[in-house]
Amino acid sequence: MQLRAIPLGTSAGRPTLFRGASALAVAAPGGWALCDCGEGAQLAAQRAGLSLSRLDAVLITHLHGDHFNGLPGLLGTLGLEGRERPLLVAGPRGLRALLEALERHGALGTGALPLRILELTGPGGEIEWPEGLGLLRYQARPLAHRVPTYGFRVALQDRPGTLNLEAALAAGVPRGPLLSELKAGRAVRIEGGRTVTPAGLVGPTRPGACVAYALDTVPCASAVELARGADLLVHESTYEHARAALAHERGHSSGVEAARIAAEAGARSLLLTHFSPSVDGEFVADEARAIHPETIAARDGVAVEVAGGGGTPADSLETSTLT
Amino acid sequence: MQLRAIPLGTSAGRPTLFRGASALAVAAPGGWALCDCGEGAQLAAQRAGLSLSRLDAVLITHLHGDHFNGLPGLLGTLGLEGRERPLLVAGPRGLRALLEALERHGALGTGALPLRILELTGPGGEIEWPEGLGLLRYQARPLAHRVPTYGFRVALQDRPGTLNLEAALAAGVPRGPLLSELKAGRAVRIEGGRTVTPAGLVGPTRPGACVAYALDTVPCASAVELARGADLLVHESTYEHARAALAHERGHSSGVEAARIAAEAGARSLLLTHFSPSVDGEFVADEARAIHPETIAARDGVAVEVAGGGGTPADSLETSTLT
Repeated sequence: MQLRAIPLGTSAGRPTLFRGASALAVAAPGGWALCDCGEGAQLAAQRAGLSLSRLDAVLITHLHGDHFNGLPGLLGTLGLEGRERPLLVAGPRGLRALLEALERHGALGTGALPLRILELTGPGGEIEWPEGLGLLRYQARPLAHRVPTYGFRVALQDRPGTLNLEAALAAGVPRGPLLSELKAGRAVRIEGGRTVTPAGLVGPTRPGACVAYALDTVPCASAVELARGADLLVHESTYEHARAALAHERGHSSGVEAARIAAEAGARSLLLTHFSPSVDGEFVADEARAIHPETIAARDGVAVEVAGGGGTPADSLETSTLT
Repeated sequence: MQLRAIPLGTSAGRPTLFRGASALAVAAPGGWALCDCGEGAQLAAQRAGLSLSRLDAVLITHLHGDHFNGLPGLLGTLGLEGRERPLLVAGPRGLRALLEALERHGALGTGALPLRILELTGPGGEIEWPEGLGLLRYQARPLAHRVPTYGFRVALQDRPGTLNLEAALAAGVPRGPLLSELKAGRAVRIEGGRTVTPAGLVGPTRPGACVAYALDTVPCASAVELARGADLLVHESTYEHARAALAHERGHSSGVEAARIAAEAGARSLLLTHFSPSVDGEFVADEARAIHPETIAARDGVAVEVAGGGGTPADSLETSTLT
């Protein structure tokens, strides 16, 4: 099973006629998550063929307008659609108060929409959601920007390792539910009271496809941890490397620095986004490929397929234009 | 001198792939005003060829998201552009607190942008703005919706009446600055100490072209007053007349009711907008034309030229598609 990363807005600071404000969908079969929600994201998602009713979670990195301003409208639309399924909205501290202020003044209009707002603090970690998360799993980790900011990992569930059926049968495990237990990684007790453990009978767990999302941030160790072994790192690259000092001053990175992060983290491939309106994304990607060859520049609406198996060669990185 | 009304978003409740959220530009040579600012308005304005740097005022009818959600992003963009000229932002009570909440959480980022926020209360009236308003003049008047809501009149300055030059000379006014004084409607003292008044020498003041903007509202007397003698009334028509009861329940009007308002007010022409996604705008306009023949359905990006002279026949109503 694969993920699909769909850039819905690749501009920094403001939407332009050619690039929307920050937003990226990570889609699995049956559900999807939205990373950041700049102005216009709800329409960009629909143009990309995504169904709003299948949206599982919105992950807001930070509350700057170009990452947040599309959220009130998206939530209002979900409210009008009469959504009854809970929606996870995670972001830094202040997210709840801001949404409450919008609701109090009538600008949200979410009515009975079952929002589950999660404010991130401290070092991040697994995002727990007792009501069921769908197929996707989320982790958060703080980044280094001008305001509290979190990056996210969006991943499919890990899959059990491959069962060596002949060896399991030879060890005395009968066909049926005990084999499933064993494949799931649990020891089983067979007839005669003997216990059989998965060791040697079941291969290593196969990690689900994983996308790491790191914007906005200066280059930092936390971004490396976030991207560790990811199949795809989506990283901001606001400026060309010649303007790295300006990028840092404003809390941002160059594409070359994003590539260093990806290389150090062992991320299989890199998708650059969050381009200043003055920046040519292809130029920035060219610079970055000298560090990490499997790098491409995000373009609005152009999806990237993400196979699992982080760390293997990046031959599964391909792009396709959605119609 | 004419005005140009440019619908930037004609949808009700939410933006769709075919209609933006509520926004309409009223453009004069050299400056323009934005009535409502739904999500995506800043891009729709640029697509329509409007320069953000020439925006004089944003007039927000009410704080529901489909009329407000584009404002934070628009202000953020103006902030990034380093605007130094003051911007008038008028709207109902709560506007200031909401913008302050967005700024406090970092979602506005207007920095040094010289915002002049005007909260409307009570019966409305002329909007005074000591720093100079540009060519346009604004009035506000309360409407009848589910939350505090104001309609607006946006007009060019009135022009002096026509001077009867021969009669003025015969009355003893010499050529030169005294004639200009007289034309401007002021009495002048001529050689010999005699006073000449404009009465009989200068025709009636010629009102500047005027657009009235009335959404969201149920049909109400206040909307009639707002539209009195306007060259163009822009009125909401959320549903067909068969669903007028539903419209009222939700604080809205049908197109037929909008036409009755326009007819009663003596508005020369009527532009219908704020269509529910389930509504065919052309059908609603057809219904309305039975009441007010000079009615058209707004389409995103299709401008309407508005000549002055309110009350004269509507032969100056024409549409053109902006490229």
